[in-house]
Amino acid sequence: MNTPTTIVAPATPHGVGGIAVVRISGPASYKIVQHLSGVALNIRYATYININDLSGNCIDRGIAIFYKKPGSYTGEDVVEISCHGNPVIVQHIVDICCELGATLAEPGEFTRRAFINGKLDLVQAESVGALIQSQSAESASLNLRLLEGDLSKIFAQIKHVLLQSLSSVEFELDVSEEALQPNLQKDLFQNVLLLVDGLSTLLDSYQRGKLLTQGAKVVIVGSPNVGKSTLLNRLVGFDRAITSAEPGTTRDPVDVNLTIGGVSVSLIDTAGLRSATGEIEKEGVSRTLQYAKSADCIIEMYEARETNKEVLSFALPDSIPRIHVFNKTDLLESHKIIALRKTHKNTCFISALSGKGLDELESKIKDTLGLNRALSSDVALTTARQKDSAKNALASINNALGLLSQSTLELELISFELHEALQSIDRILGKTTPDDILNNIFGAFCVGK
Amino acid sequence: MNTPTTIVAPATPHGVGGIAVVRISGPASYKIVQHLSGVALNIRYATYININDLSGNCIDRGIAIFYKKPGSYTGEDVVEISCHGNPVIVQHIVDICCELGATLAEPGEFTRRAFINGKLDLVQAESVGALIQSQSAESASLNLRLLEGDLSKIFAQIKHVLLQSLSSVEFELDVSEEALQPNLQKDLFQNVLLLVDGLSTLLDSYQRGKLLTQGAKVVIVGSPNVGKSTLLNRLVGFDRAITSAEPGTTRDPVDVNLTIGGVSVSLIDTAGLRSATGEIEKEGVSRTLQYAKSADCIIEMYEARETNKEVLSFALPDSIPRIHVFNKTDLLESHKIIALRKTHKNTCFISALSGKGLDELESKIKDTLGLNRALSSDVALTTARQKDSAKNALASINNALGLLSQSTLELELISFELHEALQSIDRILGKTTPDDILNNIFGAFCVGK
Repeated sequence: MNTPTTIVAPATPHGVGGIAVVRISGPASYKIVQHLSGVALNIRYATYININDLSGNCIDRGIAIFYKKPGSYTGEDVVEISCHGNPVIVQHIVDICCELGATLAEPGEFTRRAFINGKLDLVQAESVGALIQSQSAESASLNLRLLEGDLSKIFAQIKHVLLQSLSSVEFELDVSEEALQPNLQKDLFQNVLLLVDGLSTLLDSYQRGKLLTQGAKVVIVGSPNVGKSTLLNRLVGFDRAITSAEPGTTRDPVDVNLTIGGVSVSLIDTAGLRSATGEIEKEGVSRTLQYAKSADCIIEMYEARETNKEVLSFALPDSIPRIHVFNKTDLLESHKIIALRKTHKNTCFISALSGKGLDELESKIKDTLGLNRALSSDVALTTARQKDSAKNALASINNALGLLSQSTLELELISFELHEALQSIDRILGKTTPDDILNNIFGAFCVGK
Repeated sequence: MNTPTTIVAPATPHGVGGIAVVRISGPASYKIVQHLSGVALNIRYATYININDLSGNCIDRGIAIFYKKPGSYTGEDVVEISCHGNPVIVQHIVDICCELGATLAEPGEFTRRAFINGKLDLVQAESVGALIQSQSAESASLNLRLLEGDLSKIFAQIKHVLLQSLSSVEFELDVSEEALQPNLQKDLFQNVLLLVDGLSTLLDSYQRGKLLTQGAKVVIVGSPNVGKSTLLNRLVGFDRAITSAEPGTTRDPVDVNLTIGGVSVSLIDTAGLRSATGEIEKEGVSRTLQYAKSADCIIEMYEARETNKEVLSFALPDSIPRIHVFNKTDLLESHKIIALRKTHKNTCFISALSGKGLDELESKIKDTLGLNRALSSDVALTTARQKDSAKNALASINNALGLLSQSTLELELISFELHEALQSIDRILGKTTPDDILNNIFGAFCVGK
């Protein structure tokens, strides 16, 4: 095994603040900080230090804390330096550490080392990234439970049942010439049903877990001047987007963040869709379509008076759920609205200007995103990787279930399917996860975690 | 004296990162953290804790460090909690601390307490804020020297000479009936000259200190389509602003940050100045003029072919230095450029598209901002407050100098002027600074410092 390198990175968010923290992990971390400060550190003791560059000029003063392995986040020797919360100083300290032999940490490399050193399994490691990104208390709470191992425990239970079933099958295959386990088929069937149930519940939790963890993107589209910017301003509660009576006011998409039902929603106002005349407007329309493609939900907006349909000539993606909205109902007589409601059943009638109908719209957004359904368990799958592996495991288990329903017991085939399921579960927890998948997971982290 | 409250605030920059730190200062800080974690803390020892809300639910885990007074930043009992670097979690911890009796810290309140408890004088306290905001290594280095007390020491020396002079004057006034100090006038004159020299050097340093600390704002103005956005993109090195052949592409001012000569320069591209036709353009033009008013330097841009002067009809502030730039020289024959150079002596000729002439422009920006002159000393005044007080002190000293040049020694008047000067110096260091000025100083800090 190669000696690991020593890595360094800012651990606190980039920006201006009271203090910032630089984190160093690896065998040389202690020596590097001793060199730049000129003092010895006691384990876990906050020592006031000078931070000197290689010429001995003091560039800042701060606090250093040494965490001796394995009692640290990464399981290696770690030193954390608190300095003044200025990006220039932080960068300078990182540079000095690199001159003293550290290398700049890759995104997620600290957590990757924690994973490699057995401090976390892969589900827990993923939850670290998600915990940091969580944009609501609900999301943070879910991901903390995952980090504590609540989801890992469920997978461990699933694995336990799988292994039990497998060993019965293997025993029957390897050892016994006659059937020593008279209830084998029945027992296996029961166990496999348990597994189907457990995995299905987890898979059901994914949609909610994903939204809680990654948030949702809601894009407002429509012809120019139907009131898209006014709706965005109304929902966010202040004048974020410039509005005017002139069609085509919005050019670059305008993005705001709301929390709806514990889920962080990125709401995006776009340039109006029409056969564009100018260069800039054309570019705006093309960006609108790009944003719509990656949305979790599209709000398709019309003016109630005109129900202008030009927007329909644009290829909005069919696979993404849409909410139809008629705006400017304040300009329409009640009987016309009543008539329209009859012909347009599944449509929200709002006045973005007066705020009328926005509660209904918000509830519709929740419905469309699936936020009105309760979470089926205390934990949830939160990443596509977890979902895909759980799905694969469930497919194998279902195959096994099919085989167990036949009158003749095809033990070798059953064994194969259970092995496949076991591999999927191991991959979820990171026991047998290929390097490129690990790279994907940790590469999505911020540097410094 | 009232018992101080216990205050709490996030100490690290807002945003997503590996970790964040919440800082609590005041007599109840230890108890609050003991309550929320359920464990006792040793002084300066990094303890791994559960962070529980009032119902006992664990909302995160982290590290707590207790700094016992007076060995802390504020001089009070301080606890710092490191948690996961997520704004939602940080806010939650701050909320819990408030429920347990802390109050939310005002901006700069931690440093204000450090000042009140004698850990820092006012010049040092100001440098804390400036150090955090410093946008270049030069600026950080200057402000660290100020925080270490290098500027305070100079003011202490000035104060020492002042007190010496004053005591001679007072002694002569109070005690002696005949002139006991035969060289009084000569000695005083020498001392006062020293003071004039010291204060003048410091005042000279202000322009540079201010730019290093606060940065400079450079605004590009001109008629539509003269190439303002192209220039900004070229100077910042990537396509920040949308450019097009269509005049009036830029509406909202576009702001980028550059470092020129160690000074952080905020470069702002604006909507073109012309008698606007549309509502949006009118708003754009009005914002251009607003930005120009607060600039340290205006780049007034013309197209070399046309030297369009419509921009002159707009009221640009006369008091702000301007750099005249002729753009699109790539579209002009050399002899025409040579002719133009003769009639427009103080003008930069550039091609924002090809990059030609930009070195000359950058050097001109440095000249205009005074960045080509060397700093007259290792330290510099960095705030308007320091400058104003130093100016007042110098005015009093100059008055004293005038009095000392007269044949008849008006000791009472001299005493008055020296007292005035002493007060100004004391005000700089915070010995006699009124509360509203303190409020101004600390109010400009970020919360958490």
